[in-house]
Amino acid sequence: MSQRLEQQLNLLIELDKLKSVLRRTRVRSAQGRLENSAEHSWHVAMMALLLQEHANEPVDIAKVVKMLLLHDVVEIDAGDTFVYDAHASLEQEQKELEAAQRLFGLLPDDQGEELFALWREFEQAESAEAKFAKALDRLIPMLLNYHNEGQSWIENQVTQQQVLQVNQKIEKGSQVLWDKAKSLIEEAAANGWLRN
Amino acid sequence: MSQRLEQQLNLLIELDKLKSVLRRTRVRSAQGRLENSAEHSWHVAMMALLLQEHANEPVDIAKVVKMLLLHDVVEIDAGDTFVYDAHASLEQEQKELEAAQRLFGLLPDDQGEELFALWREFEQAESAEAKFAKALDRLIPMLLNYHNEGQSWIENQVTQQQVLQVNQKIEKGSQVLWDKAKSLIEEAAANGWLRN
Repeated sequence: MSQRLEQQLNLLIELDKLKSVLRRTRVRSAQGRLENSAEHSWHVAMMALLLQEHANEPVDIAKVVKMLLLHDVVEIDAGDTFVYDAHASLEQEQKELEAAQRLFGLLPDDQGEELFALWREFEQAESAEAKFAKALDRLIPMLLNYHNEGQSWIENQVTQQQVLQVNQKIEKGSQVLWDKAKSLIEEAAANGWLRN
Repeated sequence: MSQRLEQQLNLLIELDKLKSVLRRTRVRSAQGRLENSAEHSWHVAMMALLLQEHANEPVDIAKVVKMLLLHDVVEIDAGDTFVYDAHASLEQEQKELEAAQRLFGLLPDDQGEELFALWREFEQAESAEAKFAKALDRLIPMLLNYHNEGQSWIENQVTQQQVLQVNQKIEKGSQVLWDKAKSLIEEAAANGWLRN
């Protein structure tokens, strides 16, 4: 028991580092500083609790929440990748896999394997839970950007076409949320927050 | 459906403000800035996933995680209270109740009532889930402080007696974690991080 607890606490302390991984979205209430991946993970897990009824298929919401709490911990080693950066992706995938092996490897074997499997399930985006979790993870930065008058899109010169293309997978998890996303994108483009 | 979604998204955007409520603990990996309540909520929800086997009684871990995701949202209106501040408590309780009514009141009635009930259950600390969630919420700042060489205890001139007294309720949720906490407190005192 005691050794298991020490292993679990070691990972818990290691996870503290996610609070210093920065994303491209700014936090309006905090003088516009960049959002970090730990607070993002909280926000998107809350989003799952609030929006579960909009999933295309029935989902085990506890599993969705767990996936979302875990989904970004690999950024502790691999860093955050901007969703509109087409270059980073293959190398990033390898780095994230190694990070998952290192981090979940800190745990007792049974527990590490369970959480690693959950992380993989999210990445593979095939189960109903993973598709819905991915949809939320894509939608939330769009919502925050929209309420920040397009800040991250403007700062990173993102086009309407890119936003439509990258986020279309929202549809696989929730048609309702994709319809909402499309209306936000149209409004953002009309406001000049997205390039043509 | 559409009006429900708008109500849910209004709360989601309002919750962004939790990212600017600051606590007394510092984030070591982020140049020692103060931790905010959103990233704390993520960390303690992850802690529940990692340490569930140490609860005194069997718990519905999904409920524990939901409670911990929600437990601090009232700070958006009421602010954070330092756990060793004996004065703030009665007035704070009233402010938090009003905050919960306002925030969960943004939701469709059925959903607002469900989340309000979950928040109350956490506050009342009577169910097995609430006792375990409270234990985690008390233990995590002690762990972070310990790994920060007693930073918050030193900055706020906290005594060993205060730490023992305020955190003893950990025992109600987890004997194993309270034993661990006591050994950390002893070490911290021996290192001069806590006043006599």
